[in-house]
Formats: sequence, structure tokens, C-alpha cells
Amino acid sequence: MRLAVVPGDGIGPEVVAEGLKVLRAVAPDVEATPYDLGAARWHRTGELLPDSVLDELRQHDAILLGAVGDPGVPSGILERGLLLKLRFELDHHVNLRPAKLYDGVRSPLARPGEIDMLCVREGTEGPYVGNGGVLRRDTPHEIATEVSLNTAFGVERVVRYAFERAVARPRKHLTLIHKTNVLTHAGSLWSRTVEEVSAEFPEVTVAYQHVDAATMFFITDPSRYDVIVTDNLFGDIITDVAAAVTGGIGMAASGNLDVSGTNPSMFEPVHGSAPDIAGQGIADPTATVLSVGLLLDHLGRPELAKKVNAAVAFDLSTRDPKATIRTSEIGDRLAALSG
Amino acid sequence: MRLAVVPGDGIGPEVVAEGLKVLRAVAPDVEATPYDLGAARWHRTGELLPDSVLDELRQHDAILLGAVGDPGVPSGILERGLLLKLRFELDHHVNLRPAKLYDGVRSPLARPGEIDMLCVREGTEGPYVGNGGVLRRDTPHEIATEVSLNTAFGVERVVRYAFERAVARPRKHLTLIHKTNVLTHAGSLWSRTVEEVSAEFPEVTVAYQHVDAATMFFITDPSRYDVIVTDNLFGDIITDVAAAVTGGIGMAASGNLDVSGTNPSMFEPVHGSAPDIAGQGIADPTATVLSVGLLLDHLGRPELAKKVNAAVAFDLSTRDPKATIRTSEIGDRLAALSG
Ligand SMILES: CC(C)[C@H](C(=O)O)[C@@H](O)C(=O)O
Ligand SMILES: CC(C)[C@H](C(=O)O)[C@@H](O)C(=O)O
Repeated sequence: MRLAVVPGDGIGPEVVAEGLKVLRAVAPDVEATPYDLGAARWHRTGELLPDSVLDELRQHDAILLGAVGDPGVPSGILERGLLLKLRFELDHHVNLRPAKLYDGVRSPLARPGEIDMLCVREGTEGPYVGNGGVLRRDTPHEIATEVSLNTAFGVERVVRYAFERAVARPRKHLTLIHKTNVLTHAGSLWSRTVEEVSAEFPEVTVAYQHVDAATMFFITDPSRYDVIVTDNLFGDIITDVAAAVTGGIGMAASGNLDVSGTNPSMFEPVHGSAPDIAGQGIADPTATVLSVGLLLDHLGRPELAKKVNAAVAFDLSTRDPKATIRTSEIGDRLAALSG
Repeated sequence: MRLAVVPGDGIGPEVVAEGLKVLRAVAPDVEATPYDLGAARWHRTGELLPDSVLDELRQHDAILLGAVGDPGVPSGILERGLLLKLRFELDHHVNLRPAKLYDGVRSPLARPGEIDMLCVREGTEGPYVGNGGVLRRDTPHEIATEVSLNTAFGVERVVRYAFERAVARPRKHLTLIHKTNVLTHAGSLWSRTVEEVSAEFPEVTVAYQHVDAATMFFITDPSRYDVIVTDNLFGDIITDVAAAVTGGIGMAASGNLDVSGTNPSMFEPVHGSAPDIAGQGIADPTATVLSVGLLLDHLGRPELAKKVNAAVAFDLSTRDPKATIRTSEIGDRLAALSG
């Protein structure tokens, strides 16, 4: 397994080290090549994602990313120039974000119930395409636009993927989340696509909710969800809500998948580089380790993914909530439990 | 006070009756004219908002709306043809949505803390403008677009209103919520506008958060918010999150304001027509009564608004959470307490 590793900034390198530790414990054949991308490189060289690096990344089976960013980088630079560039260049059309409330993890909800959902967020279309502009900037007549682009090709493939995931789960339930009553053009494409693809998956029950109502139900009744499919921007928002009710983005894993296999998929914790706690060895590597689980699953090693996930579940259920986290200790424990 | 009343469908007429009862208790000079708009009229006549009705609505000081819709109306019809049409035609550029956790109201959060925020959502721009289209419909080459339009004129006036509200509140804090790192064109206009207007309000402290992070903090730390200003679509989502953590949309009031005073502003509970409980006299009219409070405040009668709000606060803090709600009893009680 040829793995490209982008440790990044802040706590990125710390959590990635533990992710690799666990990965190696279950898959000793990993050949990991580090790539220096992120805020540090940008400060040093002004480079974000040189073409030569992108070409090299393409030569791998998968990419593991820690986190990028520091307070010295203006907002938008790393997002558009590195993170979104990777998603678009590598055609990461499925942004996969499970949200599960593990035993032993405290939810901010008073009565969370059982939460185990899988958000399938579109990753290469919608309002994220960067299509927009500004006219008469800095005048009272300024106009700024943002265009959401949605294609049958793009919507169909992510909807199909979501159905495939849904049919493989015990509850076989899929919820489309959109705002079809207001965004009627894009909404109609999404609704019709879900309806069409659903004919191929008669075992899957389908529901629809407007994004505003859905975020509410994520808080008042999250147990009702199984698999969710949604557009890029709505997915950005609702996966943070889903993460919040299952213990925070500190626990949330994600995969950016090119389901066709043409390009390597990328796996990363949802949290950021957390400069405030960087270098202290107290970052929780759990989200990175869960992302390693997604990676193993994606690369056709579901039995290894299961081991990693079981290790995390066991560790979380037995953690002392008052003890300070030591990043490497958690990694050691998870590696031992998985291996 | 010349008030146009749109009771609407489902529980709409029931809650509006109580809202009017309370309004009359504090302002006996109300002259209320009912208008038949909503699902029932559409089923009967195919009409949504005839020009003649719109003209008549314009002749009033304010509009009070219950709720419209029933399961027989296809999604999008009443939204685009009536609700959004009213907002756009009457230039309701400020969508005002307070979210306060009252004593005696149960939040789904385990430790909600004190929540008292005022969301100022833009109401006439952004992705709600209906600018978009579909090309090659029902073919594998279909493309659907949605264009978010943002103008200096439109952003400035809602931002200014938010600052005016913030400076009048004890905490004098304003948070801009957007997604400036991805929607860079619109985001830049919003950020620059907030920065510019903030110079006129040196007492107001200003914060910025991305919408995904903000929805998370609404759940994990809602007390940090005072006034919020945001775009139309983000506002739609986050005000439902804010409602959820303060007891549900059943409790949420809203005002659609034309701050210039050219057109009548419209006040309505955020909840829908709830056909499942319609006609039983068990709908909670609290959100409508709180909307009447916003109406009184907007029409320059803040001392009457205070009475109504105090009545609601007292009633909520003394309600038996196990007793069934009787719509008219709550209305009677609130009218007596306010008058
Ligand atoms: C960093 C940012 C571009 C990104 C997004 O908006 O997708 C992040 O919020 C995420 O959810 O992965
Ligand atoms: C009914 C719908 C058009 C509306 C909106 O999206 O604004 C509603 O959700 C709201 O928040 O008032």
C-alpha cells in the first residue's frame, strides 16, 4: 500500500503519527511518503500545491492528511488553494462523514439516544465550484455573485454511492437533505435523481427533508437518520451539526473519495490544526485513527477497518473522562488493541 | 393601527386568534382585516397572491400571518408564490428571529446555559432570489444552477440594522456568520461591509464565524451569541438550530421587516400549519404571541411589547409541563397577564 502522508500544521503531524502507528499495526505493508504542504510551506515558499507535488500524489493508493492552517494565513488561501484544489483535482466527489455516538463519549444533548449516521456529501459541485464574481467592488453599487453548479453526472454518482452504502446497512434508510422548495432548479435535479436511482434499490426506504428542518432533527431526534445524501454546502453544515451531537469535531473522521478509483482518495480528521494546543502532545488522535479505518475500508480491507474501529470503540468506552489526553499513549493503546 | 391578518391553513387560524386576543388586550385600537391566502385559497381558486390583494396589504401598518400549507400542495408553490413573494414584493430585507431560552422551557441540550440571541437574517437577496435554471432537463447532460446575488446596497442595510440592534443591547456584541473561505466573492462583500459599518459603532464588539463552525457552537456554547447577522440561506438554517436549542420552532417568533417603513412589515410564528393537530385546539400560540411582541416593538410601542413578552415569560415559567395545551386557555391567560 503506497500512502502519501500530508501531516500539515499544528497538531496535524502529532495526530498523523498516531494514525500511522495504528495503520502499521494492522497493515505492516504500508509504504508512507511524507509531503510538506500547508501553512508552513506557504509561509516559507509561497507555494500551496505545486503541479509536481499533485502529480506525485496521484501515484499513490491513498492520501492521509492531518490538518493545515495557522493564524498567519489569510482566510481562503489554504482552503481554495490546497484543500479544495485537492478535492477538485482528484475528483473527490464523495465526501464521506460518519457520525456515531460511541459509548463513553459525552454528547451535548440531554437525551441523544443511539446515533449512527453516515453523511454522504457531494464534493465537487454546488456552491463550492468557485464560480462567481464581483462587479463595481468597493462602490455602493457592488454586486457579488456565487453560482451553484449541479450536473446530472455529478449528482447521480454521489446519489448512487449513497444508495449503495444504504443497502449495505441494517436499516437501509436514505435521507435526501436539500432546500428544494427554494432552490427549485438544483432541488429538482437532486429530487428527480434520488427518485430515479431509488428504483434500482427497492429495499432502501427514502425520506426527504429541507436542510433547515434536518438540522433541527439532528438535535431533537438524531436517531432517525441512517445514510444521508446532500449537496456540498449543506453537507458542510450538517456534518458539523452531526459531529457536534456525537462528541465534537475532535472525534469526526472523513474520507474524500474518488469512487471510480482513478485518483487516490484522501482521508482526514474533520478538525483543524488547533495551534493553541500544538506541540504539547495532548491532541486526541481518535478522529485520525477513525479516518484510517475509512481508508482501510476504501482500499478493500474491511476486516482491518473493523479491527481499528473496534479498538477505538473499546478505548472510548473505557477512557477516564477526567484524565488528560496524551496523544502518543492513545496511539499506542489503539495500535495494541488493533494489531 | 391597521392590521392585515392572514390566518392561513391548519393551526394558523387557531394561533392567530390568540395572537389577536393578546394584541387587543394591550392595544384596543387595532383594526384587523382578514385576508384569505394560503393552501385553501390555492386549492379553491388556483390563486396565490393576486395583485389586488398585494395592493390592499400595502395599505396596512403591519401584517400578522399564522401559517400556510397543507400536504396537498406541491412543495415550492406556496413558498415561491406566496411567502417569498411577500418578502420580495414588500422588501422585507430584515428577517428578525430572536432565540431566547425562557425559564421553564426544556432545551434538548444537557447544559444549555443562558441563551438570548437575536438573529438578523437578510431576507431579499442571496441564494433566495430565484435566479437559476436548468439546461438539458431529464438528460444525462442536465445542468442546474442557482445564483446567489449579493449587493452592497442589500448587505449594508441589513448589517447596519444588526449593528443598531447590537448597540442597544447590554452585551453589544455582533457575530457575522458566513462561509467567506469558500464563497469568497459574496463573503468578501459581507466581511468588508461589516468592517466598514463597525467603524460607526465603536461600542460594538464584532466576531466572525464560518457557518459550519457556528452551527456547532450553537449546540456546544450558545451563550456566546448576542446579535447575529447573516445571509438569507445561512440564516434559514441557523435560525432553526437556534430555535431547536431554545425549545423548538413551536416557540420561535419572527418578523419580516422593511426597515425603511415603505411597506408594512410582517410578523409570523416560524412553525408551519401542522395539519396533524389542526382543529383540535391544542396548538401552542406562544410563538404567535411573541411575534405580536415583535410587531408592537416595530410599530413604536416598545412598552406594550414588553408587557406581552413579560406575560409569555411568566406563563412559561409557571406552566405544568405535563398538562395538555389548550390554545384558547393560553391565549386567555396571556391576554389577562398582558392587559
Ligand atoms: C476548510 C473548508 C474548505 C472545508 C469545507 O468547507 O468543506 C471544511 O469546513 C470541511 O468541512 O472540510
Ligand atoms: C418556507 C420557507 C420558504 C422559509 C424559508 O426558507 O425562508 C422557511 O423555512 C422560513 O425559515 O421562514
